[in-house]
Amino acid sequence: MALVPPIDYEAASAAVRAVYDDIRATRKTEYINNFWRVLANDPATLARTWANVKEVMATGALDPLVKELIYVAVSVTNNCEYCIHSHAAAARAKGMTPQMFDELMAVVALANATNRLANGYRIDVDARYASPLAPAV
Amino acid sequence: MALVPPIDYEAASAAVRAVYDDIRATRKTEYINNFWRVLANDPATLARTWANVKEVMATGALDPLVKELIYVAVSVTNNCEYCIHSHAAAARAKGMTPQMFDELMAVVALANATNRLANGYRIDVDARYASPLAPAV
Amino acid sequence: MALVPPIDYEAASAAVRAVYDDIRATRKTEYINNFWRVLANDPATLARTWANVKEVMATGALDPLVKELIYVAVSVTNNCEYCIHSHAAAARAKGMTPQMFDELMAVVALANATNRLANGYRIDVDARYASPLAPAV
Amino acid sequence: MALVPPIDYEAASAAVRAVYDDIRATRKTEYINNFWRVLANDPATLARTWANVKEVMATGALDPLVKELIYVAVSVTNNCEYCIHSHAAAARAKGMTPQMFDELMAVVALANATNRLANGYRIDVDARYASPLAPAV
Amino acid sequence: MALVPPIDYEAASAAVRAVYDDIRATRKTEYINNFWRVLANDPATLARTWANVKEVMATGALDPLVKELIYVAVSVTNNCEYCIHSHAAAARAKGMTPQMFDELMAVVALANATNRLANGYRIDVDARYASPLAPAV
Amino acid sequence: MALVPPIDYEAASAAVRAVYDDIRATRKTEYINNFWRVLANDPATLARTWANVKEVMATGALDPLVKELIYVAVSVTNNCEYCIHSHAAAARAKGMTPQMFDELMAVVALANATNRLANGYRIDVDARYASPLAPAV
Repeated sequence: MALVPPIDYEAASAAVRAVYDDIRATRKTEYINNFWRVLANDPATLARTWANVKEVMATGALDPLVKELIYVAVSVTNNCEYCIHSHAAAARAKGMTPQMFDELMAVVALANATNRLANGYRIDVDARYASPLAPAV
Repeated sequence: MALVPPIDYEAASAAVRAVYDDIRATRKTEYINNFWRVLANDPATLARTWANVKEVMATGALDPLVKELIYVAVSVTNNCEYCIHSHAAAARAKGMTPQMFDELMAVVALANATNRLANGYRIDVDARYASPLAPAV
Repeated sequence: MALVPPIDYEAASAAVRAVYDDIRATRKTEYINNFWRVLANDPATLARTWANVKEVMATGALDPLVKELIYVAVSVTNNCEYCIHSHAAAARAKGMTPQMFDELMAVVALANATNRLANGYRIDVDARYASPLAPAV
Repeated sequence: MALVPPIDYEAASAAVRAVYDDIRATRKTEYINNFWRVLANDPATLARTWANVKEVMATGALDPLVKELIYVAVSVTNNCEYCIHSHAAAARAKGMTPQMFDELMAVVALANATNRLANGYRIDVDARYASPLAPAV
Repeated sequence: MALVPPIDYEAASAAVRAVYDDIRATRKTEYINNFWRVLANDPATLARTWANVKEVMATGALDPLVKELIYVAVSVTNNCEYCIHSHAAAARAKGMTPQMFDELMAVVALANATNRLANGYRIDVDARYASPLAPAV
Repeated sequence: MALVPPIDYEAASAAVRAVYDDIRATRKTEYINNFWRVLANDPATLARTWANVKEVMATGALDPLVKELIYVAVSVTNNCEYCIHSHAAAARAKGMTPQMFDELMAVVALANATNRLANGYRIDVDARYASPLAPAV
């Protein structure tokens, strides 16, 4: 049970309503989910978190569905029940099929297993992997 | 430093060589990275883990690059140094640009933050998210 | 649902009652919460854990409220539902205001995010941070 | 080793320099640590993360030293080497004594232990802890 | 609530039934628990996961009860509610006494605490521990 | 690099020496490993942690080798480099063979994978597993 009550639009301050309005406009839905309605107890965190989500989850080099899949992968690894449910729903709305969800779960499970094999055996990083993203000299 | 020494092809048993051969054929490279050469100390785990990776990371409903991004997301969340390096390199080889890596990191960081907001405030799952993947009745 | 039943004072052994009595005297309350009543199934763990809590959470260089905030931060990061509820209540009893809780959540979320940025980009520790607590030579 | 190279002030774009300037002005130091210099590879993440840190870590209901202690507690729980070093240094600069660090470590260790006792025994939350932050009726 | 419905034997495909049959034969019970019935939505993951479990959890250098205890230790550390319940039950069926469970919880709690002391103080690995499993030269 | 320097016997206070003496007597070795020598910077944590380790890791319903295997399983899951090295060495000294270590790693990897399958699919606990340790009524 949430430690603080969710705040409805009607009971919200102007600052909170401004965020709710932007969520509605951005997502093209009237629905404000519990995450935002609980964060509204701290308007600064509500505004900052929404600004972060809006910026990070927008279309970029990765498309929004891929970003949602990554979000679910992290949430499953951390076992965040709320986030698994809400981002699985968001991914579904953006086109995730049941088969894609199954493959996502399979990769997450595999990565969690091999992470422990690598850490447990204390495997040294291959020299060739040291800086895979560095620009070629 | 690895708890057990990596095993080179020349020193490997027939069972280990069979896995190495399949890795080389599947990945179209002669290089066998440290992960497999250390797992070779336990041929059963080597064979089982490679079979899992080969099956799970193949093209399916999700393409291999998306699967690598998910792998990196889990590895960063768990802080597996070996896996971050090796799968960032694998993702790069499959087409990940530096900008895609940056966006991946941004989503992973955001998800790790909001996971704790949802868990810390103990936010209740919205009724509409309860079973997002269930077939419509 | 707890794997073993909580043990009430009336049904407890002398060894368990001694711990319960000390909890009541130290906390100035008759209430023994579920954590201790379940641990009572293993009197050694009950006594050892209570001794640890009593020693570590006492006033020292850090005051008890700061210690409770740290406790909640760890519990949120690990997603321990019981511990979030019980230590948020303890912090509240020691003076934590709702605004302090909101700021605590904001710091916990931020740290969980930046932890992944630092780990994901594999950022090297600055030389000047190497031993911040070492006595000056 | 960082996956991308740190970016010095002299080599930075105007957008990155603006963040560096604000870090210097806010912290009253010329030093820009590796965290920001690596994030500078993604100016959007650099600017967003710095804005978050500046807002969340400022003086509020909790003082900046307490916020740094909480930051370290999370970083130790997640084992972020970079963050432990950098935030232990920051806490030291804000007045953390070695004794305070020792007590911080003791609380973090204790909480990580009791989190697992509560989760492992699946202890039910006491009814009285359900909503410790809810306004009194 | 599970994101996808469990699949009963009667409604299952031939591929799923083959796995169910092997689970029943291996475990000498008619009961197929929810874990397998939910994974059955993805027959490939069902078959692969069951093959892994059957191979890894079989008698080897470690006996099955010790393997179950290790399974519970990991599940408690990660806070997997389902896994704690199901593997505690499996361990119980293989001979785990309540006293053994209590000692298991005590070790898990202790290790989670000392892991953070070692990580938090950034304690250097003793030279003599570097490669404890390497064959003597 | 450790945040505080290790303390040698010769430089230690009487309180610290008393713990060192007990470690030596209990373990029948002159060697005091880095973990204790760093904790010695906080004599209260040194004494409390050693008392916990001595009590929890002693022979009981579980034998000391099984307890060390559980310790390693937790340390691998959390990625505590120091603890993996030191407890793998301790387990080796108590009779762990390389084959046992391999099987330990295989179980740890498997459990970390299935933990995420159970959490990701949000699988409901079977009614029969609800209280596997409760005494029969």
